[in-house]
Amino acid sequence: MDKISINAGVIVYNADTLLNLSYDDYVKWKKKPSFTPDVVWINIDDKQSFQSAKSLIDTYHFHPILLEYAQEDNRRASLQLVEKELFMVGKMMYYAKEELIFEQISMIYHEGLLVTIGELVGDVYDSIRDRLQNPQDPLRGRKTDYLLYALLDRLVDAYFDVIAEIEDDVEDLEERVLHVHAQKNLHEIRTLKRDLLYMHKHVWPLRDVLSRLSHGEQTITLETQIYLRDVQDHLYQVLDSVDTLREVLSSLVDIYLSNASIKMNEIMKVLTIISTIFIPLTFIAGVYGMNFKYMPELTWIYGYPLILGVMLMVAIGLLIYFKRKKWF
Amino acid sequence: MDKISINAGVIVYNADTLLNLSYDDYVKWKKKPSFTPDVVWINIDDKQSFQSAKSLIDTYHFHPILLEYAQEDNRRASLQLVEKELFMVGKMMYYAKEELIFEQISMIYHEGLLVTIGELVGDVYDSIRDRLQNPQDPLRGRKTDYLLYALLDRLVDAYFDVIAEIEDDVEDLEERVLHVHAQKNLHEIRTLKRDLLYMHKHVWPLRDVLSRLSHGEQTITLETQIYLRDVQDHLYQVLDSVDTLREVLSSLVDIYLSNASIKMNEIMKVLTIISTIFIPLTFIAGVYGMNFKYMPELTWIYGYPLILGVMLMVAIGLLIYFKRKKWF
Amino acid sequence: MDKISINAGVIVYNADTLLNLSYDDYVKWKKKPSFTPDVVWINIDDKQSFQSAKSLIDTYHFHPILLEYAQEDNRRASLQLVEKELFMVGKMMYYAKEELIFEQISMIYHEGLLVTIGELVGDVYDSIRDRLQNPQDPLRGRKTDYLLYALLDRLVDAYFDVIAEIEDDVEDLEERVLHVHAQKNLHEIRTLKRDLLYMHKHVWPLRDVLSRLSHGEQTITLETQIYLRDVQDHLYQVLDSVDTLREVLSSLVDIYLSNASIKMNEIMKVLTIISTIFIPLTFIAGVYGMNFKYMPELTWIYGYPLILGVMLMVAIGLLIYFKRKKWF
Amino acid sequence: MDKISINAGVIVYNADTLLNLSYDDYVKWKKKPSFTPDVVWINIDDKQSFQSAKSLIDTYHFHPILLEYAQEDNRRASLQLVEKELFMVGKMMYYAKEELIFEQISMIYHEGLLVTIGELVGDVYDSIRDRLQNPQDPLRGRKTDYLLYALLDRLVDAYFDVIAEIEDDVEDLEERVLHVHAQKNLHEIRTLKRDLLYMHKHVWPLRDVLSRLSHGEQTITLETQIYLRDVQDHLYQVLDSVDTLREVLSSLVDIYLSNASIKMNEIMKVLTIISTIFIPLTFIAGVYGMNFKYMPELTWIYGYPLILGVMLMVAIGLLIYFKRKKWF
Amino acid sequence: MDKISINAGVIVYNADTLLNLSYDDYVKWKKKPSFTPDVVWINIDDKQSFQSAKSLIDTYHFHPILLEYAQEDNRRASLQLVEKELFMVGKMMYYAKEELIFEQISMIYHEGLLVTIGELVGDVYDSIRDRLQNPQDPLRGRKTDYLLYALLDRLVDAYFDVIAEIEDDVEDLEERVLHVHAQKNLHEIRTLKRDLLYMHKHVWPLRDVLSRLSHGEQTITLETQIYLRDVQDHLYQVLDSVDTLREVLSSLVDIYLSNASIKMNEIMKVLTIISTIFIPLTFIAGVYGMNFKYMPELTWIYGYPLILGVMLMVAIGLLIYFKRKKWF
Repeated sequence: MDKISINAGVIVYNADTLLNLSYDDYVKWKKKPSFTPDVVWINIDDKQSFQSAKSLIDTYHFHPILLEYAQEDNRRASLQLVEKELFMVGKMMYYAKEELIFEQISMIYHEGLLVTIGELVGDVYDSIRDRLQNPQDPLRGRKTDYLLYALLDRLVDAYFDVIAEIEDDVEDLEERVLHVHAQKNLHEIRTLKRDLLYMHKHVWPLRDVLSRLSHGEQTITLETQIYLRDVQDHLYQVLDSVDTLREVLSSLVDIYLSNASIKMNEIMKVLTIISTIFIPLTFIAGVYGMNFKYMPELTWIYGYPLILGVMLMVAIGLLIYFKRKKWF
Repeated sequence: MDKISINAGVIVYNADTLLNLSYDDYVKWKKKPSFTPDVVWINIDDKQSFQSAKSLIDTYHFHPILLEYAQEDNRRASLQLVEKELFMVGKMMYYAKEELIFEQISMIYHEGLLVTIGELVGDVYDSIRDRLQNPQDPLRGRKTDYLLYALLDRLVDAYFDVIAEIEDDVEDLEERVLHVHAQKNLHEIRTLKRDLLYMHKHVWPLRDVLSRLSHGEQTITLETQIYLRDVQDHLYQVLDSVDTLREVLSSLVDIYLSNASIKMNEIMKVLTIISTIFIPLTFIAGVYGMNFKYMPELTWIYGYPLILGVMLMVAIGLLIYFKRKKWF
Repeated sequence: MDKISINAGVIVYNADTLLNLSYDDYVKWKKKPSFTPDVVWINIDDKQSFQSAKSLIDTYHFHPILLEYAQEDNRRASLQLVEKELFMVGKMMYYAKEELIFEQISMIYHEGLLVTIGELVGDVYDSIRDRLQNPQDPLRGRKTDYLLYALLDRLVDAYFDVIAEIEDDVEDLEERVLHVHAQKNLHEIRTLKRDLLYMHKHVWPLRDVLSRLSHGEQTITLETQIYLRDVQDHLYQVLDSVDTLREVLSSLVDIYLSNASIKMNEIMKVLTIISTIFIPLTFIAGVYGMNFKYMPELTWIYGYPLILGVMLMVAIGLLIYFKRKKWF
Repeated sequence: MDKISINAGVIVYNADTLLNLSYDDYVKWKKKPSFTPDVVWINIDDKQSFQSAKSLIDTYHFHPILLEYAQEDNRRASLQLVEKELFMVGKMMYYAKEELIFEQISMIYHEGLLVTIGELVGDVYDSIRDRLQNPQDPLRGRKTDYLLYALLDRLVDAYFDVIAEIEDDVEDLEERVLHVHAQKNLHEIRTLKRDLLYMHKHVWPLRDVLSRLSHGEQTITLETQIYLRDVQDHLYQVLDSVDTLREVLSSLVDIYLSNASIKMNEIMKVLTIISTIFIPLTFIAGVYGMNFKYMPELTWIYGYPLILGVMLMVAIGLLIYFKRKKWF
Repeated sequence: MDKISINAGVIVYNADTLLNLSYDDYVKWKKKPSFTPDVVWINIDDKQSFQSAKSLIDTYHFHPILLEYAQEDNRRASLQLVEKELFMVGKMMYYAKEELIFEQISMIYHEGLLVTIGELVGDVYDSIRDRLQNPQDPLRGRKTDYLLYALLDRLVDAYFDVIAEIEDDVEDLEERVLHVHAQKNLHEIRTLKRDLLYMHKHVWPLRDVLSRLSHGEQTITLETQIYLRDVQDHLYQVLDSVDTLREVLSSLVDIYLSNASIKMNEIMKVLTIISTIFIPLTFIAGVYGMNFKYMPELTWIYGYPLILGVMLMVAIGLLIYFKRKKWF
């Protein structure tokens, strides 16, 4: 992945003008700005662009711990106020090649500036970039806190896409589990449960982040707080859906297992019915296969049909017994 | 479903007068009102009527996010204050064709105005509409907050109808599970558990809505707060019942499964008793079926009855052993 | 049950005097009271007496919602302040004909007045009525809040009687489950679990009621608050016991099930040992029962005893194998 | 148990002097005290001494509910302020004859006075009594609140002794469960689980008691609060250990059960291998045991060894099949 | 372990100078200090060094309960303010010889002084000691609270090392459990579950400690609080990972058990198919092995091939039946 990500770069804009710049160009532009921007959005798409953006980042003199945070993997979703900057971490989620990817997204927010830092090339923000090109879009007329809202909204909406995909899989599985008893189903159920487990783990701590943002942390305007509360609502919906899907999957496992035990019962019944009918018959045949010299029945003319009749009656008797016991 | 829902329309009233209007008629009437209404209730029954009501809605200049909310599917029950309007979402529940339907109900409340927005034709508010026709009914003498209460009360009462139906099914299942061991029962139990799972998911967040309403959010009068607290109480009862029914259904699954294992045990016992008795007997018969030249017993006159006697004793001995072990 | 309940009626008293009156007599007496009562206790024992007491109740002009509450079935335990009246709902519990009965008890409390409303003939308050007859009893010298305490105390004490009965049953079951493996035990365990489930459901919300009462809601004196805190303590004990009993019953189910699986194992072992020993022997007998012309062993003089010896050795070898595997 | 408990009695002391008195002697001494005591500790060891101490107790004119509390069995651990007295209830725990005993301990605390009330002869306070004899011990120089601390500390320390004994048993069981599959183990696990269940039930409510004491309830000095916080810490450790041990025991049950199912599998495998090999062989022998007149194989000279060879090949083939399936 | 731990000793430093001293040397140096130290770090590595450091410790006149705490084993992680000193307890974790070791670490913190007390030779602080040697390191320019932070950070980072090792084991097990069904896997899963159970037990109470420290307990500067909040975040991550790993392990046990039941089913199927096919065939052979004088079939020329054909058809019929039932 040596190619430079096309999303890496800086977007500066106000209601009238918008510029897309590379990191280096922005450093130059900043010295002699052609207009006064409302918002500067520095997007660092992956680990490689982080290196390229280093010199730009340095010009802001962030608290050193911020940069440490931004480069650390596997952080928990959280919000921290470090001096004047708000530092946020969250997870972006998407399916790539049938596998659920969790990409860590860090954001450094300060009035007029938003730095977003990803780990892998590509993100879910294309729709935001498109909207920014349009001067009529509400995004253009508002400040950095609204951009922050828009990005978080996209992030959480992307969760719904993942949920929708899982819901499709679950519906599909529900059908299959009821009709076919394949171990493959069990394996798929488990993969989905695992995905949901990690989803829950990554989404859960984000509640606090959004709750604090939507209740007026820092320079978030009242107007934006209303919108953030909507994002928070969506997040709760995601969590509800994750929990419900986990319960549904658990019940699918139960269905699978009880189907297995029903099948086992059926197998045992067949074995028992066949064995129980033929074992006594075989015994009777065995008796008249003995070579004793003095066995009067053997010489009776009707001995053979008589014994066949006895066998038939034993078999019918046992079948009636099983029928009464409702074994078949 | 192209027909216009008969519930879609506007009801304007005060203690003395009440008018039923279509959306368009109301827009006209509003310009030259024939009386001063205390309450305007705009009911948008389904997605189609939403389109028809659009021009009416626009006259109120709601915050744009409100209309976004109202058209969004699958929202979680919640209450939000957006500028001066209170926005509420909840779920209506009813059984249609043996299936539990969750219909999303949104409400926009402002003093003097209540907009209710559903998704499907038909609702549970007929009794409210009937009461409104009666000038003596307390509804007529009170304000919009009391209408809000009345509608929420109906909504929650409709939950009880669903609960009652599930309770009947559960009672019926309890009887059947104890006496018949059919896989169909298990399937029914699961459908009910699923319904209760979704019921819980949809009812649970409504608590917060009612708690905030009944503790004086906005322009709710003290008098109405008392009534809303009663609705809240009913909601807790619904949740209690849902939880209790879920536990009862879980125990029914346990009964089903332990019945299955008891049946399995019974089958195994029959197999074991029959096999264990006849296998040794067949062996004895086998021994005397061997063709050795020198087998003295074969030539004894009483060899045959003797060996039959031995077999009988073995069989009786084993039966006594099983009896002692309490196998039957 | 057409007979008038003997508990239905009004008791008016102060430290010196006490009168037992029917509803109608009390209405008359009230107009010309023979003394100034500290406490008026109106007991409405069942749904029928509620009708008889209607005209008396009407003289108090309660808020209409109060009377609605009082007639509604299946309310959750709760405490509400409606204007000046305190309205309480709780459950009375007792065993009748081996079945656990939950009777709803409502109370309307106002200084100087206590109305208690039951659903079925009979209550647990006889000891309170007896104490009231005695002028020396502390009840007589105190106000309505103390009577309220005394009744709640009785209510909760009656829970202990139910718990005690269940504890006896559980102890009895513990003995039986260990020694006898009867499906009847499982059924009894389930009935008790069900009872405890409902007990928990009904007792749990009462905590809030008592907590609010014992922390000075309304006109409860400091002195009575101390006593109410004791009732609250008892309630926690009831809940603790219910939880503990539920865990004990769950472990009894586990014992039952593991006993079942131990029994199954035992059955399988017997089957396996018998089958595994005799199947090879029967095979050997079968081999020498074949009718080939040229089978040299058949003509050996010691062929028969030799083969019997071989069979014995096979059987002994297998028994030693099973012994080593600790199968018996 | 008619003998008077040697622990029943009164200890009065200050930094210089200490006296051990019987209840009656103390009543006399109190009238003409030989010195001014800092602390009066009245220990009522069991129910019998409660009767003897009655006249002494009466001299303090406690609120009547206090004495009611003190005589009531099976109270939940709690702390109540009744007028000026602090009333505490907790449980003493110790193993007696392999059984875990929970003895209820009540304490009435007032500045200068501590009354401790037990139920059974004997307690865990001997070390405290020994320390009191020693004038250099910190106990002697401090007030009643420090004695209260010392007694609670002892009480909680005694919990650790019980925990230690259970931990030993659990360690022992862990060894045994892995190597021997005896039902006795299951029974022991259950007894321990039961003990821990009750321990949790009795220790859990004590947290509140200690939390309130260590945050300055009543006349507890700041110095003693530091020490009480240590007791509180120990209590949390006890609860942690109880929870951990319960989880460990649950996992032991799982090990037991999965061992049982592994054993079952092994039995089934042996049965299946033996049956599946010999049943076809027996069938072949049966075929050549038929008495048809025209069966050409029977007259072949090498028919018998040929058929033995076929049987051997069938057996080997099946063994290879099972080996491939990794059945042994 | 009689050798003196090389980590035991005193490090005194300020931004310019740093000295490594033994306990005794430090006592001497303290009397005539060669410079004014910002920080004195007394490290007591194990129980033996505690004895050597005793005389040094005594010079600080700590509250006696502090020294009691420091010597007590198995304390729960906690933070206490005892007079002016902050006392902390936590657990150090590392794998030694395949076993997870929990070593208790106590810290006494006072401005300018930090005493760290371990139980076993060796700790995880080597990197801190190395950094202290470097005058440019931020550690050197800051106060004791920053050293405290650095040590806690190391402690929590060491948890991640343990988590990483467990994660490797779990990943390895996930592979193996799916492909091999060995009881050894189950044993390993259980050991890991046990380790995680104890990890949770020891890490959980540390949250409170860090929460209080990072919200300004005592003399912790605002600057250090920011860093401590980062440690707290890491701690939450540890707890999240522990919980997730426990769930993953539980699901591995489920996979193991359902694999076992699938295997059992397979065994039963083989047994049933073989038995059910051959038992009727053997019966037929048995019939024609009977020695009746008058059995016409026996004398038919094509009797033998006919009966073989019948047997073949029975076998094929049963195979088709099993195929339809999808048994193989």
